[in-house]
Amino acid sequence: MSNKTRIVAFSGSLRKDSYNTAAVRVAMEMAPADCEIELLDIGTLPLYNQELDGDKAPREVLQLAEKVMAADAILFSTPEYNYSVPGVLKNAIDWLSRQKPQPFAGKPAAIMSSSMSAFGGARAQYHLRQIMIYLDVHFVNKPEVMIARAHEKFDSQGQLADATTRDFIGQLVTALIALHHQLSPSEAAKK
Amino acid sequence: MSNKTRIVAFSGSLRKDSYNTAAVRVAMEMAPADCEIELLDIGTLPLYNQELDGDKAPREVLQLAEKVMAADAILFSTPEYNYSVPGVLKNAIDWLSRQKPQPFAGKPAAIMSSSMSAFGGARAQYHLRQIMIYLDVHFVNKPEVMIARAHEKFDSQGQLADATTRDFIGQLVTALIALHHQLSPSEAAKK
Amino acid sequence: MSNKTRIVAFSGSLRKDSYNTAAVRVAMEMAPADCEIELLDIGTLPLYNQELDGDKAPREVLQLAEKVMAADAILFSTPEYNYSVPGVLKNAIDWLSRQKPQPFAGKPAAIMSSSMSAFGGARAQYHLRQIMIYLDVHFVNKPEVMIARAHEKFDSQGQLADATTRDFIGQLVTALIALHHQLSPSEAAKK
Amino acid sequence: MSNKTRIVAFSGSLRKDSYNTAAVRVAMEMAPADCEIELLDIGTLPLYNQELDGDKAPREVLQLAEKVMAADAILFSTPEYNYSVPGVLKNAIDWLSRQKPQPFAGKPAAIMSSSMSAFGGARAQYHLRQIMIYLDVHFVNKPEVMIARAHEKFDSQGQLADATTRDFIGQLVTALIALHHQLSPSEAAKK
Repeated sequence: MSNKTRIVAFSGSLRKDSYNTAAVRVAMEMAPADCEIELLDIGTLPLYNQELDGDKAPREVLQLAEKVMAADAILFSTPEYNYSVPGVLKNAIDWLSRQKPQPFAGKPAAIMSSSMSAFGGARAQYHLRQIMIYLDVHFVNKPEVMIARAHEKFDSQGQLADATTRDFIGQLVTALIALHHQLSPSEAAKK
Repeated sequence: MSNKTRIVAFSGSLRKDSYNTAAVRVAMEMAPADCEIELLDIGTLPLYNQELDGDKAPREVLQLAEKVMAADAILFSTPEYNYSVPGVLKNAIDWLSRQKPQPFAGKPAAIMSSSMSAFGGARAQYHLRQIMIYLDVHFVNKPEVMIARAHEKFDSQGQLADATTRDFIGQLVTALIALHHQLSPSEAAKK
Repeated sequence: MSNKTRIVAFSGSLRKDSYNTAAVRVAMEMAPADCEIELLDIGTLPLYNQELDGDKAPREVLQLAEKVMAADAILFSTPEYNYSVPGVLKNAIDWLSRQKPQPFAGKPAAIMSSSMSAFGGARAQYHLRQIMIYLDVHFVNKPEVMIARAHEKFDSQGQLADATTRDFIGQLVTALIALHHQLSPSEAAKK
Repeated sequence: MSNKTRIVAFSGSLRKDSYNTAAVRVAMEMAPADCEIELLDIGTLPLYNQELDGDKAPREVLQLAEKVMAADAILFSTPEYNYSVPGVLKNAIDWLSRQKPQPFAGKPAAIMSSSMSAFGGARAQYHLRQIMIYLDVHFVNKPEVMIARAHEKFDSQGQLADATTRDFIGQLVTALIALHHQLSPSEAAKK
């Protein structure tokens, strides 16, 4: 049995050169060896329709739900659109929330956000935290990783040279793993 | 020249028998004669991708933007999913927000929400208000129309018999028209 | 050494017959034997002034900070005033937040709210959760105890006869103790 | 009859050298000649107690309520404490909200915030906006004046040399006066 911490990651942007998707790749680089991070694809989901809750959901939703269900922890990396969470990310959450068992329930999560503004996506983070209360998710409080002026920090290949930001992302992953161990002490002990 | 107040309405639910879509129809019935309400279709939009901002947006987005641009006021009717605005509605707002001119700018808006819970969608309303600050929308403050236990109020044909709720919806439309006149006094005088 | 779980409770209302203060007394009654709940007095604090941060704070603040510091967990019981947390409660949090060490850091907390409205104080709960992110508090997600129409549930002596609500409060205390044990497994094991 | 626009201002900080109080003085300097801004004193209010609603309120509350009642518009200048509105400011709002007539009802308002952080108090602004929905206040949407790193912009005498920030504050006052005229067109015409 694997003793890795399995993290699934959501990027809130579908842009090919998204800073937020790039930040997930940085998280993969900074993660400790006993942790694997998988980026989920939410760009192929249809728009949510309540008529298709539960078993009736499209296959992409059922597959995503299985991956979230199997994960130890969740990592969100999201831009802020119009002072909140992107519709694209919320749409994925809306689909997943209606699966049974609800796949986020009881899991730890962490948020990072990148934006070209001076705020780095803070407003999206607080809305996302309220959303996930209902889904019984426990968030890492610190560090709050808000990557402001992302276009100055990531290069055109999506590489992040800035050591301070890289370290913050690494600390966030470490804090997420620690919260997983706190919330699931017996499971962590087995490993 | 028409002297009608033109309102465009968004329903946050794609469900065929949506209470929120039904509430838009009630608003149409309760609206005064010099006001017309058109329900916009946001269910055919793809997921938002920033690469397609502005002119590159799909035709459905450009057509929606024209309708919002031509309207005097906006009416949102939305469920609350996971303590916030549905991804479906946010996705439409995200697309429209990147059109130039930004079609919501300076317009008055009103929100109603229907849900099967005891809260009637309140949490979605406050998130939607924060979202629309960035888009420079002015909201009606009162009445706050939150239709709790919607399944007990709407019948299976989506008819709303409850006179109190019908009146609330009528008051909301009236308040929205009044706010339009306050914000555009010279334009209102022309009519 | 005592092996009790020590909870300190804040009531957001200074009214003598406050439903929220009464709800803290119900929590005391419903708590298991190995848990003690102390209601803190925040009504004698002056208005917060940043010039008096840290050691310069009034003695009442220093004493409160010691009690919070010594506690295992925090219980908030608060009305909603004007769609948010009462100034009285926020004032106490503002004072305490500037003590070093910051006494809330890392602690688990739970919220209940009572109000005469149909909402039971929900809006105050979400603002309080955002406030406590900065102070590194971990909240119980479920149950969300929102006591609507409190004047129909509490009698004139502040007694709560309603068994369902009493049970909810008991579940909240139980969930808070469980979260304390999750977050502090080694400490809990010592007991 | 005076044809001035009368604005009352609230500072959320009681610190003698408060950047937020200093920002109100800048607003006074930048205001057009036909606008007067009065800074209200909220530092002498006791902690709010619901037993003293309405006529039973302390004299300081009754006097403040008269001033707000007589004003055309409201200006808030507030720090962000613990990701929200200071308890001191919320306490004043809680008292005023229980006066009859409710003195904020229907009035336009604007917010500016100063803080030493990179965010400039944004989180307090969005909480304040939610609070004032209940009190039927209409907020200026733009500009959003968030003065980040305030300690680098204000000098030790509370003077603000930075021309860009001064202009922003001037624009906010202008926008507030314009919103007052939009919301009260007949009253504005009389002047």
